[in-house]
Amino acid sequence: MKKSTIGLAPGTLVYDGVGEKTKIKLISYQEKTVEEKDIIRVAEISAQAKKGDVLWIQVNGLRDVEKIAEIGKSFVIETLILEDVLNQNQRPKFQSFENGDFITLRKYSLKDTGKVVSEQISIIVTKNCVISFSDDSNNIFSDIENRFEKSHKRLIKYGSSYLMYSLLDFIIDEYFLIQEHFEDTIEVLAKAVAKSASSKTREKLYEVRTQLLLFRKSILPLLEVIDRLKKSENYSVGQKSIKIYLEDLNDHLVHIQDLSRTYTEMLEGLSSLYFSTTSDKTNEVMRALTAITIIFLPLTLIAGIYGMNFKYMPETKEVWGYPVAILFMIAVAVSITLVLKNKKWL
Amino acid sequence: MKKSTIGLAPGTLVYDGVGEKTKIKLISYQEKTVEEKDIIRVAEISAQAKKGDVLWIQVNGLRDVEKIAEIGKSFVIETLILEDVLNQNQRPKFQSFENGDFITLRKYSLKDTGKVVSEQISIIVTKNCVISFSDDSNNIFSDIENRFEKSHKRLIKYGSSYLMYSLLDFIIDEYFLIQEHFEDTIEVLAKAVAKSASSKTREKLYEVRTQLLLFRKSILPLLEVIDRLKKSENYSVGQKSIKIYLEDLNDHLVHIQDLSRTYTEMLEGLSSLYFSTTSDKTNEVMRALTAITIIFLPLTLIAGIYGMNFKYMPETKEVWGYPVAILFMIAVAVSITLVLKNKKWL
Amino acid sequence: MKKSTIGLAPGTLVYDGVGEKTKIKLISYQEKTVEEKDIIRVAEISAQAKKGDVLWIQVNGLRDVEKIAEIGKSFVIETLILEDVLNQNQRPKFQSFENGDFITLRKYSLKDTGKVVSEQISIIVTKNCVISFSDDSNNIFSDIENRFEKSHKRLIKYGSSYLMYSLLDFIIDEYFLIQEHFEDTIEVLAKAVAKSASSKTREKLYEVRTQLLLFRKSILPLLEVIDRLKKSENYSVGQKSIKIYLEDLNDHLVHIQDLSRTYTEMLEGLSSLYFSTTSDKTNEVMRALTAITIIFLPLTLIAGIYGMNFKYMPETKEVWGYPVAILFMIAVAVSITLVLKNKKWL
Amino acid sequence: MKKSTIGLAPGTLVYDGVGEKTKIKLISYQEKTVEEKDIIRVAEISAQAKKGDVLWIQVNGLRDVEKIAEIGKSFVIETLILEDVLNQNQRPKFQSFENGDFITLRKYSLKDTGKVVSEQISIIVTKNCVISFSDDSNNIFSDIENRFEKSHKRLIKYGSSYLMYSLLDFIIDEYFLIQEHFEDTIEVLAKAVAKSASSKTREKLYEVRTQLLLFRKSILPLLEVIDRLKKSENYSVGQKSIKIYLEDLNDHLVHIQDLSRTYTEMLEGLSSLYFSTTSDKTNEVMRALTAITIIFLPLTLIAGIYGMNFKYMPETKEVWGYPVAILFMIAVAVSITLVLKNKKWL
Amino acid sequence: MKKSTIGLAPGTLVYDGVGEKTKIKLISYQEKTVEEKDIIRVAEISAQAKKGDVLWIQVNGLRDVEKIAEIGKSFVIETLILEDVLNQNQRPKFQSFENGDFITLRKYSLKDTGKVVSEQISIIVTKNCVISFSDDSNNIFSDIENRFEKSHKRLIKYGSSYLMYSLLDFIIDEYFLIQEHFEDTIEVLAKAVAKSASSKTREKLYEVRTQLLLFRKSILPLLEVIDRLKKSENYSVGQKSIKIYLEDLNDHLVHIQDLSRTYTEMLEGLSSLYFSTTSDKTNEVMRALTAITIIFLPLTLIAGIYGMNFKYMPETKEVWGYPVAILFMIAVAVSITLVLKNKKWL
Repeated sequence: MKKSTIGLAPGTLVYDGVGEKTKIKLISYQEKTVEEKDIIRVAEISAQAKKGDVLWIQVNGLRDVEKIAEIGKSFVIETLILEDVLNQNQRPKFQSFENGDFITLRKYSLKDTGKVVSEQISIIVTKNCVISFSDDSNNIFSDIENRFEKSHKRLIKYGSSYLMYSLLDFIIDEYFLIQEHFEDTIEVLAKAVAKSASSKTREKLYEVRTQLLLFRKSILPLLEVIDRLKKSENYSVGQKSIKIYLEDLNDHLVHIQDLSRTYTEMLEGLSSLYFSTTSDKTNEVMRALTAITIIFLPLTLIAGIYGMNFKYMPETKEVWGYPVAILFMIAVAVSITLVLKNKKWL
Repeated sequence: MKKSTIGLAPGTLVYDGVGEKTKIKLISYQEKTVEEKDIIRVAEISAQAKKGDVLWIQVNGLRDVEKIAEIGKSFVIETLILEDVLNQNQRPKFQSFENGDFITLRKYSLKDTGKVVSEQISIIVTKNCVISFSDDSNNIFSDIENRFEKSHKRLIKYGSSYLMYSLLDFIIDEYFLIQEHFEDTIEVLAKAVAKSASSKTREKLYEVRTQLLLFRKSILPLLEVIDRLKKSENYSVGQKSIKIYLEDLNDHLVHIQDLSRTYTEMLEGLSSLYFSTTSDKTNEVMRALTAITIIFLPLTLIAGIYGMNFKYMPETKEVWGYPVAILFMIAVAVSITLVLKNKKWL
Repeated sequence: MKKSTIGLAPGTLVYDGVGEKTKIKLISYQEKTVEEKDIIRVAEISAQAKKGDVLWIQVNGLRDVEKIAEIGKSFVIETLILEDVLNQNQRPKFQSFENGDFITLRKYSLKDTGKVVSEQISIIVTKNCVISFSDDSNNIFSDIENRFEKSHKRLIKYGSSYLMYSLLDFIIDEYFLIQEHFEDTIEVLAKAVAKSASSKTREKLYEVRTQLLLFRKSILPLLEVIDRLKKSENYSVGQKSIKIYLEDLNDHLVHIQDLSRTYTEMLEGLSSLYFSTTSDKTNEVMRALTAITIIFLPLTLIAGIYGMNFKYMPETKEVWGYPVAILFMIAVAVSITLVLKNKKWL
Repeated sequence: MKKSTIGLAPGTLVYDGVGEKTKIKLISYQEKTVEEKDIIRVAEISAQAKKGDVLWIQVNGLRDVEKIAEIGKSFVIETLILEDVLNQNQRPKFQSFENGDFITLRKYSLKDTGKVVSEQISIIVTKNCVISFSDDSNNIFSDIENRFEKSHKRLIKYGSSYLMYSLLDFIIDEYFLIQEHFEDTIEVLAKAVAKSASSKTREKLYEVRTQLLLFRKSILPLLEVIDRLKKSENYSVGQKSIKIYLEDLNDHLVHIQDLSRTYTEMLEGLSSLYFSTTSDKTNEVMRALTAITIIFLPLTLIAGIYGMNFKYMPETKEVWGYPVAILFMIAVAVSITLVLKNKKWL
Repeated sequence: MKKSTIGLAPGTLVYDGVGEKTKIKLISYQEKTVEEKDIIRVAEISAQAKKGDVLWIQVNGLRDVEKIAEIGKSFVIETLILEDVLNQNQRPKFQSFENGDFITLRKYSLKDTGKVVSEQISIIVTKNCVISFSDDSNNIFSDIENRFEKSHKRLIKYGSSYLMYSLLDFIIDEYFLIQEHFEDTIEVLAKAVAKSASSKTREKLYEVRTQLLLFRKSILPLLEVIDRLKKSENYSVGQKSIKIYLEDLNDHLVHIQDLSRTYTEMLEGLSSLYFSTTSDKTNEVMRALTAITIIFLPLTLIAGIYGMNFKYMPETKEVWGYPVAILFMIAVAVSITLVLKNKKWL
């Protein structure tokens, strides 16, 4: 919790996540081969790093603050940046430091249960190395690993910047899935709302609205991140070559932002529809109540009148009294019904 | 679906539409004649293209990814651009590349059934050639073809840029029709809402609101497209000459944007009107119910009292009892009615 | 209708208004005299125009497209501009062309019936000539004509720019009248809404809201027009001298824009007030209904109980039974009433 | 009324206020003394003005258009500016002219009755003179006069600019009082709304909202006025020295603007609270009605059944019939009540 | 109250708070030791200040205006700044003066009772000295004092700027706690609203909304303060070194601003949810009322009919009359119930 860091000096490393033990994997891409290795001691990396290949260091699980600090020391990364890596509720952010660039952003994924979950991914790019930090101990980038296993020509050609771009592209591509999920949910909701108002629909509307809100919150700063990334001059290899790819990422993000704005407005439209559905239904129920009351109260009164115990009520003594009273009631009921039908209340 | 492209390398061509087989048509405009030809093999184009005429290559239906790729190779178009051509849910976009400019935008048309449909049109302009891509296998630009068949003086004079402008102008002119359709629909809705609230009106309101939202979403980025088009220096022939035409397009788009903002606000006004209509109607119904209840309950009570079986109820023994009771009831009913009328509840 | 122009080449002149036959009037202001003449053939203008006076050509009614085209040719005006003159649903717009400036804007006027009507006015200014186009065959600028008939010193001094400014000033001054009309209407509505909710008030609210919306839509672009007019360098005579007048126009427009924003927000406040009035009234009616029901149902039940036909109901046999029952009912009614009064339901 | 000026030449002076006769007071501040004099003929001012002291000319009441025009002529003020002085519904505005600067703004004051009133103040600053125009014939700046009577060192030191600043500061300080008044009113309203919904509260909400709207409308342009005042280079004496004071004014205005935005949003929150209060109350009333109906209708039915006149109703013949029926009714009433209590409807 | 300062000359010192007597504490940080001293006479400070250490002067309680004025004189601080220190409702603000920088901002803290309270903190930084002003006589910065007691290396290295940064960081860190509090409150409210609508929830919603509004109001100007602080060139020692720390503060504030915007929108969503919950509940209650009425009114009518006193009602004479009537009633009740169940009203 942030609470524990109040009053501490800036750059003090405190882990605030709930993840598992830190696992480090090192993948080194060479012209022809790809080597993969699980790292136990951080010092092993530096040994590897000297070879000059493109390195990908995956840090999964951020519990071992000491290891993170060691990596930081080994790559000369400022402690303020490491603090941001550890703080799991960071706003998407770009920062340049002497040896490279630092990016943090949220990765969203759609669980099979239809739930949207997100986690923070931090990426550090140096001249020939990408370090990715994730508090999830699973290998969330296996798709990219597999792709590069098959062919890593461009990776060798453009260097670490291309690897960083690939990670960003992968994460942002998943945003489209989330958007599709929102689109589907809104369509389902629209049908549910049009049909009838129920507490389930009502709460779902609120939930989706909140989810979309949180999702949107992480896109706007990401646009700024991409923009500053394009302008960064810190990592020399391949930067210009990947500018066109970053431009493409930017277009994707702008599109996603457009979509989420649209969905937000659609949800507002749905809220409005929900209200009018409810108030129309209430109106309908009221009309039914009023109609039934208007029809039955007079009849009940007539019955009540002929139930009075006055000694001298001439018509009650006649044989025709009862059927005429019943017929009169029917006449009253029918004429009121006709009037109501005329007024479109029935 | 976008899902299938996640994790792929950038520039991988995947078709995500539902269109038919690709048909390619080549129209070459010469000083005096217009030649039209259906193309089977992409190589035929290059043969034609060398003549130096203004060429219009219409690619209708985008299913044959290989043909698109071949065209791309033949005109040296980047694969990222071809990817955008194939992706049918693109945000309107402008991109310059070495040999020319790329534009993608949405074409809206109004079906006879009153339904608004849209499709993505991509346009590539090079020095003497325009390539238009549409996933619809029908010839959607036949009006323009016909116009140029009659006279293509300006086309020869200003070159491919004028052809591109003509396509854009044609697409944007149809936006006005869509706007008129919205205007008419809103007018009809306004009358419907003022008269009474019905589930049909309610859902129509939501539907129009959503349609307008989607429509607006594609105009703002288009303005940016036109703006960048005006500044583009890539296609040399005729560019300056058509600047004034692009300015005109820009004015049209700004006008359309204004209109759609206005319509959106009108729809909000209508939503508000809808709510007040419903709540006023509910109020009216409630007043009727309350009035009828206030009038009849006392009468029913009186009848109930004289229906009690007490042995000693002096008035029930008298000859005048019954008529007086009835008269009393009438008096009560009349006075309550007058009070209610006075309070404007009836 | 715009529909008819889709697919036409840009600059094709099509009249889409409903106005009457074109009448052309030429007023030429000389140092000492003012000459006025009805023009039948456009060629007569050029004859007059050569004298070097300040000319005002009033084109009232735009039906005769050929005459407009002839004027265009005679003053070397681009066809795209003439197209804008003829299209009656133009967005306020400024455009410079080789010989002068073109402005189009909306003139609002308040009919005696309290209805707000608007029409499009186009103005072309050249070195020594102002051409005003209006689809209304009436002389809508007679007030200005009269003013200049009395004194046209400044007109001679500052030239055609001053005439143009006078027309704009006249049109924008009328905007204040429209605003006053809105202010009055809102005041009347506020009183109506506070008193009671009626379908008339409800629809009036929507109508005013829509009118104000359309009015506002034409002010924002007009501000831009004035701004570009101030920067225009096209018409040489007097331009600098009238800059301070244009500044003044700008201030007026900003003020009008402020006012209309304020009125819009006031109308939103009124909508809100309308809703709360309605729901308060519904609440009030409900309270009355509930109170009457709570008072009468128990009484009716008591009467019903003593109306039961059980053989052995001891109290019904006593002389005091009837009055005691009645007294009991009164006691019940009074105590319920007191409880309700206490709860502020009555 | 603005109506009367339509069609007039710009700079025509027309008085549209409702104030009293014009009174002119001249205060001249010298190093050691302060002289005060009522001016009858405008020419007297010029005589005084030549002495080189700091002059404050107070023009209270704007009815005598000729006097205003005379002052204008005497200080070489443009007629467009004098027109703005006379027009009582001006937007806050700054304008430089050859001999000085012109400011117009609204002065708000809080009457003892809790009513907020406003009037337009115009200020003209020249090298050694401040002319203040107000349509109120009372001396509204007496507080400042008194302050300077006691000590006018800074006034002598910084010149007319300091006097102008003092007037602005005085007017803007009163804005804080207005804000406090709004704050108090909102607090009172919040309590009233939370307790119950009444037509008085409802209309007060609308009224405060409108007042705040009008108040806010005059602050934004005033910020611009201060900004342009800071940049003005027209009045030479002391300008730089008072820049820090103007900065301070600017901070005050920004603060006031913040406050009024906050209050506006609070009022929106209150509107929302009002609605929910009303609809909750309606819900509560409805629940009471429904409960009472659900309890009494079955009892009434039972009584009605035993009131039927069938010859063979065995239980009515028994001695235990009546008490058992009554007990049965009580049992029914109690169990329904328990069910309702369980459902939290009672 | 501000009221008392209207008409006063600028820079007049007036205390408008409600705090206690002024206590002054001086902490001087030297390379190796930390000295702490309570100051009675302001003159003692100057004596201390000459030593060249980093000084922290804590002024707690602002009642003694004379002491504040003395400090001001001693550090050559402008009176306009001291006026801002004393005015307890200042907008967050940065101001440079000859000897240093002045910052004022709001410190928020969360009381154990869950109440959010705020107070104004003013900070003045000079070359080697930080003066903090707070109207709270408690030592609110004791956490920071403790931290520096343990280690003040950086403080000595970067000088007074680092001390100022530490105070700002401490205050802004607490903002995160406030945000967490808002987040928790919203979560609790969301559950409460989904379950049922109560006046407590309703008022809590309004209260949180208002609190968040006031909180947000103090963040935006603070961002500007940090921005201007970064650009300030007034305090020489260590400024560049702490730029990266200020950048970090800036990121925190932007994050907090994002969060509060998100919470505001969540609260709007909750308001909307509240309304729909209420109107759904009303609808539910209405349906129950209508159903019960529709079932019982016909039964009561039947009972009423057989309670009529007509002499000739054949069925009442039969033995089967009574049970058949009862069965008929049951049949009617069951069929109405089935119809209602079918219509989903029960």
